[in-house]
Amino acid sequence: MSAAHLPASQSPVATNLSGGAVEFTQHLRELQKQIEVAMDAALSATPDVTRFVPPSLFESLRYSALGGGKRLRPVLVLLASEACGADPLQAMPAAVALEMIHCYSLIHDDLPAMDDDDLRRGRPTNHIVYGEATAILAGDGLLTRAFEVLATEISNKELALACVADLASAAGWCGMVGGQAADLAAETTPVTTLVELEQIHHRKTGRLLACALTMGGRLGGASVQQLESLARYGFAIGLAFQIADDLLDVEGSSEKLGKQTQKDAQAGKATYPGFLGVEASRERATDLVKQACRELELFGPRGQWLSDLALYIIERDH
Amino acid sequence: MSAAHLPASQSPVATNLSGGAVEFTQHLRELQKQIEVAMDAALSATPDVTRFVPPSLFESLRYSALGGGKRLRPVLVLLASEACGADPLQAMPAAVALEMIHCYSLIHDDLPAMDDDDLRRGRPTNHIVYGEATAILAGDGLLTRAFEVLATEISNKELALACVADLASAAGWCGMVGGQAADLAAETTPVTTLVELEQIHHRKTGRLLACALTMGGRLGGASVQQLESLARYGFAIGLAFQIADDLLDVEGSSEKLGKQTQKDAQAGKATYPGFLGVEASRERATDLVKQACRELELFGPRGQWLSDLALYIIERDH
Repeated sequence: MSAAHLPASQSPVATNLSGGAVEFTQHLRELQKQIEVAMDAALSATPDVTRFVPPSLFESLRYSALGGGKRLRPVLVLLASEACGADPLQAMPAAVALEMIHCYSLIHDDLPAMDDDDLRRGRPTNHIVYGEATAILAGDGLLTRAFEVLATEISNKELALACVADLASAAGWCGMVGGQAADLAAETTPVTTLVELEQIHHRKTGRLLACALTMGGRLGGASVQQLESLARYGFAIGLAFQIADDLLDVEGSSEKLGKQTQKDAQAGKATYPGFLGVEASRERATDLVKQACRELELFGPRGQWLSDLALYIIERDH
Repeated sequence: MSAAHLPASQSPVATNLSGGAVEFTQHLRELQKQIEVAMDAALSATPDVTRFVPPSLFESLRYSALGGGKRLRPVLVLLASEACGADPLQAMPAAVALEMIHCYSLIHDDLPAMDDDDLRRGRPTNHIVYGEATAILAGDGLLTRAFEVLATEISNKELALACVADLASAAGWCGMVGGQAADLAAETTPVTTLVELEQIHHRKTGRLLACALTMGGRLGGASVQQLESLARYGFAIGLAFQIADDLLDVEGSSEKLGKQTQKDAQAGKATYPGFLGVEASRERATDLVKQACRELELFGPRGQWLSDLALYIIERDH
């Protein structure tokens, strides 16, 4: 299957992709199911949790962390491990930790002082349900729990520590947190070049996606060269993902997305379609996916799932 | 020097303590100075930081993390390492990480949706200076950076990973974050027993203080028995510290403390003086300090600084 023949329509992946697409979709669903189970277990009511975590905080964390979603980031962790020839499930602690970081960032980003969103994945946002104070604490709790999971659930201690360093760097002030701050700053000092826009996306989403690949690769026994390829794949699909997001905001329906659309344009936000137009944006996404897939040559047939996923990312309609 | 003869007055420590007090104060100041240097270095404008961290976020993090304060928690990390016969400064990464967690918690606790405080250590709080959005992100950034420091600055990888697990557990939903949530819940469902009050303090301040001792002990080469004693010492002085805080709120001046006083009573908050009265509260603090000092017997003369610090905690007037 070649990314060069990517159709421009936005119908579901299973009907769009050529041979192997159904198999990929099944594999994806299986991994998503396993991720749900692992997230639930990592946030379950153990005796300590029952004793020490107030009920509203407990529910608030679980509301946002177990609220479904595509689970794209943890899937990437598992597929990277699998691409290296390892059992994908042995990378689950890193997948869970990364998804917790993603979920905390959504809770905090949705706060009134930040993006002020009432709706997320078709449900009221955390602070709408539990109040702002609990939402802030739920975010803090998930962020902290992510590192606890890495430190306690990975049997190889050296790899566990490397994952802590990876994740803290990707999620921190030089990474995701810095990207969110730059995004907020762009509200008063608008972004005027595509380079600036890409620098924001690099931090806001790219670093965490690349980290998913790196952690999965590490736990799957990747060589240094493989780790570098995985990270480059991650950055490429990260940008492709962002372009697809911008396109969905222009073209998608609020009903399907489970969140407001046309919000970027209304807020005067810089977007890919804004800079390049819709068609050129779609081409750029296609090029990035091709670039990502080239990085997978190193993995031979084992890289196929990641290649399928790259296509899935820009074909999704929600 | 015996905790049994603790004076009730609140004059500065150097004039209150008997033999060795001046020496202790000097040692304390020296460690505090080293901590300032290390905090500054961990949050300095490296090429990556200059490139990726927006200026307002950078300033906001440094505003709260380098704003002085007693540095009690990182001092405890260093003294615990020293009590085990190690160079206190080799535990500095753990000291810095723990202080970052403390600083982030203050930024988030001060937010309008939480305790809504405008003043901290005599200066406007972070969100007053930088706005709520940046304050939330500065807290997230500090929290994440803490784990990055542990993962990258401690040479013994096994100990580094143990410290990540310690800190994540102490600061997380079963620890500090849970305690803050319980404290907020107490605003609508008031605490009616001393046991409940102590359970909140155990999580909100006790866990992090015990973690300071445990991490310092680990890095100083403590035995399992010594680690357990250090943790118990931490919980005892944590509670003593909280009682002292409650007493200062009743008796201290806003000018000296750099924050509003009588706030607890005004907010109808449960406090030690509220349950026990001022005198019995002071006695309870003294008992806890004695209890803490007994845990230090295991360390012989090397435990002296920690013993001095326990006294210092309940004698401070700011």
